[in-house]
Amino acid sequence: MTTRIRQLRSAFTKQNIDAFLVQSDVNITYLTGFPASESWLFITPKKIYYITDFRYILEARKGLKGIAVKQYTKSIYETLFSIVKDEKIKRVGIDERHVMLAQYKILTRKCPKGVKLVKADNLVEHLRAIKDAGEIAKIKKALRIHKQAHQFLKKIIKPKISEKEVLLKLTNFVKSKGVEFSFDPIVACGPNSAYPHAKITDRKIRMNEPVLIDMGIDVEGYKSDLTRMFFLGKIPELVRRVHDHVDRAQKVAIGKIQAGISIAAVDFEARNYLESQGLAKYFGHALGHGVGLDIHEDPRLAQSNSEVLREGMVITVEPAVYIPNKFGIRIEDMVLVTKKGCKVLSDDIN
Amino acid sequence: MTTRIRQLRSAFTKQNIDAFLVQSDVNITYLTGFPASESWLFITPKKIYYITDFRYILEARKGLKGIAVKQYTKSIYETLFSIVKDEKIKRVGIDERHVMLAQYKILTRKCPKGVKLVKADNLVEHLRAIKDAGEIAKIKKALRIHKQAHQFLKKIIKPKISEKEVLLKLTNFVKSKGVEFSFDPIVACGPNSAYPHAKITDRKIRMNEPVLIDMGIDVEGYKSDLTRMFFLGKIPELVRRVHDHVDRAQKVAIGKIQAGISIAAVDFEARNYLESQGLAKYFGHALGHGVGLDIHEDPRLAQSNSEVLREGMVITVEPAVYIPNKFGIRIEDMVLVTKKGCKVLSDDIN
Repeated sequence: MTTRIRQLRSAFTKQNIDAFLVQSDVNITYLTGFPASESWLFITPKKIYYITDFRYILEARKGLKGIAVKQYTKSIYETLFSIVKDEKIKRVGIDERHVMLAQYKILTRKCPKGVKLVKADNLVEHLRAIKDAGEIAKIKKALRIHKQAHQFLKKIIKPKISEKEVLLKLTNFVKSKGVEFSFDPIVACGPNSAYPHAKITDRKIRMNEPVLIDMGIDVEGYKSDLTRMFFLGKIPELVRRVHDHVDRAQKVAIGKIQAGISIAAVDFEARNYLESQGLAKYFGHALGHGVGLDIHEDPRLAQSNSEVLREGMVITVEPAVYIPNKFGIRIEDMVLVTKKGCKVLSDDIN
Repeated sequence: MTTRIRQLRSAFTKQNIDAFLVQSDVNITYLTGFPASESWLFITPKKIYYITDFRYILEARKGLKGIAVKQYTKSIYETLFSIVKDEKIKRVGIDERHVMLAQYKILTRKCPKGVKLVKADNLVEHLRAIKDAGEIAKIKKALRIHKQAHQFLKKIIKPKISEKEVLLKLTNFVKSKGVEFSFDPIVACGPNSAYPHAKITDRKIRMNEPVLIDMGIDVEGYKSDLTRMFFLGKIPELVRRVHDHVDRAQKVAIGKIQAGISIAAVDFEARNYLESQGLAKYFGHALGHGVGLDIHEDPRLAQSNSEVLREGMVITVEPAVYIPNKFGIRIEDMVLVTKKGCKVLSDDIN
């Protein structure tokens, strides 16, 4: 954990801040290893403070090493600013995407004279986007269990089983492995697969139609996230053609991936291929996203993202074609960005 | 649903707003009955708009009746403000507790000339705090299943079973009833019960120690939330005494509850009783909270709340005493506030 705190502090100068307030639970967990809840972490040049209340104080004192645990009673703001005064902090960095306007107004009101709140967005997320060896090992472990769940799905997906029944059996299987889903799975057959975020229904799977399953496994907070298509019987010609184009779109995008390449260029590669087949209009979402402690985290693989891929990022690549009222095809894999290219972490799950 | 929208609109004049932007998913669900996700609801004097993106548009068009569903592509802000212009809205109410500072800055920047963003906090939560007959029926249904789960717990809580094993069996039982927990249950035995939000451990239950179980059931989004103490063998004298005092503190607080009474006075009643027994210092959290679509919602039963109870509120009453490293006792019931008093909804779960 100390490496992460050190990396974070090393960004202070560039951001022109003396200290940084972490208000996101998952960011606190990332920095400390402690499962934070409704608490703040305050990082000054020399010390780290965890500010919490009565409900969590015992666990915090036990679980946090090398961190000053402060209990607030009336106001978390007063505890924060008494540290600010004691340490003579002048510029407090905050992430404006993690502070509610109402909270920010109180922070501004209670802020001592001579102290400034300074916008410092994305500092922790920027670190989180690059996975270290321990994090990659957990993601790989999630994928190993995911593979077993995928094999299980291949056995149970048969005509006449309903989406809900598939989910129930899958849930029991995952529980029996002692793990949890990383998000509510999507099981969508026939025309239901045309909804990008389909809700589970009682619809029974029929012959000759596609079944889309988007699921993930959580191992110690780290997640897998894959979409696989299943087919029963004879695949209709149009479905097969669309499937092959989506598959090809994914391949050309993955072929582009390496450290240093523009994220927009990777998204464009897939979108452009689908456009050449007249299918881009059916692909309305981003190409993918980072995965780690959150199921969706940085980087977002979208046209609007002006950043580049960096070595150690773990991202999904999930082109799709959704034809309303007919069917949808999405193929989603997880990819580790390397210096000279990438490694598809999920290529043995078929 | 139209009643709720009508009630909300009737608050516009007092708030001095022409329209209201709903940015909280659960508030949108409450107002529309539709399971919203990453979307906004915009309520003008005559129309209701649901603004969403590609991923949710098909479901939204299908699921939302009497609401104009708008798909945004590049920017949700532009879609919002084009409606504002078309409808000649001048004052847009926002809830400052549901808008991130970063979002608010974009709203401010994109806001057309002559249009104002106006603080209008708590409008939907104020409605949600009062439950209608349909909502109370769902909460009662959750409590009926909760009762079965409680009976099941009485059977399985035995010496040598671990907290984790209790949770596993309880989880299977709840799944077998076709429902979900309303939050991650707490199972805490012996000294673990001294943590207000105890994490589940491998500790095995022993004779002559208290076991605290805090759990809830979700039925169609509405929730139960109860804490019960279990005892095996002979209850040590101190534990029994503390238990009886907590039980008494709950009774005196419940005795106070009726529409029109100050919330702080109800909290004080329990706290004051515990103080008279020298135990108030071990009771560091609020007395309770509203329960509905969220497990914690308005009203918060705390000293700092200056409001009064209103008829139709459903609240928990959960005094507690936590003696660090020794044990904790919490007793939590759910209470419906009535005109002349209250009804304890969970008094048959023992």
